[in-house]
Amino acid sequence: MARVVVDVMLKPEILDPQGKAVHGALPRLGFSGVTDVRQGKRFELEVESADEATLAEIEKMAETLLANTVIEDFVVRVEEQA
Amino acid sequence: MARVVVDVMLKPEILDPQGKAVHGALPRLGFSGVTDVRQGKRFELEVESADEATLAEIEKMAETLLANTVIEDFVVRVEEQA
Repeated sequence: MARVVVDVMLKPEILDPQGKAVHGALPRLGFSGVTDVRQGKRFELEVESADEATLAEIEKMAETLLANTVIEDFVVRVEEQA
Repeated sequence: MARVVVDVMLKPEILDPQGKAVHGALPRLGFSGVTDVRQGKRFELEVESADEATLAEIEKMAETLLANTVIEDFVVRVEEQA
């Protein structure tokens, strides 16, 4: 078994209201030193093996289902390879 | 500048309806070979430097604001260190 992670983040030029809300809340909770916060989605996919064909299929899954490629970028990476 | 990532995922024993919905949609879109899907949140925090004190503070931010530690686990890691 292997675990493939797909990280989906808003494109840098797209306003991130959730990230802004978290960033705005930090000083009220007594935290400082963070200049920006961006929030996105993380998908963990369990597959038989993270071979090339599987990774190509996951790229297609990310493009069609996991990310809205008009406003989001995604990164596919193998996290665990049993 | 440095980028610290906080990954927040539901604890394994907690049902993940979003992950189940994505997993259920894959065959309808012609994808196969994925045995499970879990969905969580990814936070990217920009900080001056990812020194020990800053990482300790980010752990506290994750505990109090970014994750609901009753149902979620989180992992803090440095992704870029300029």
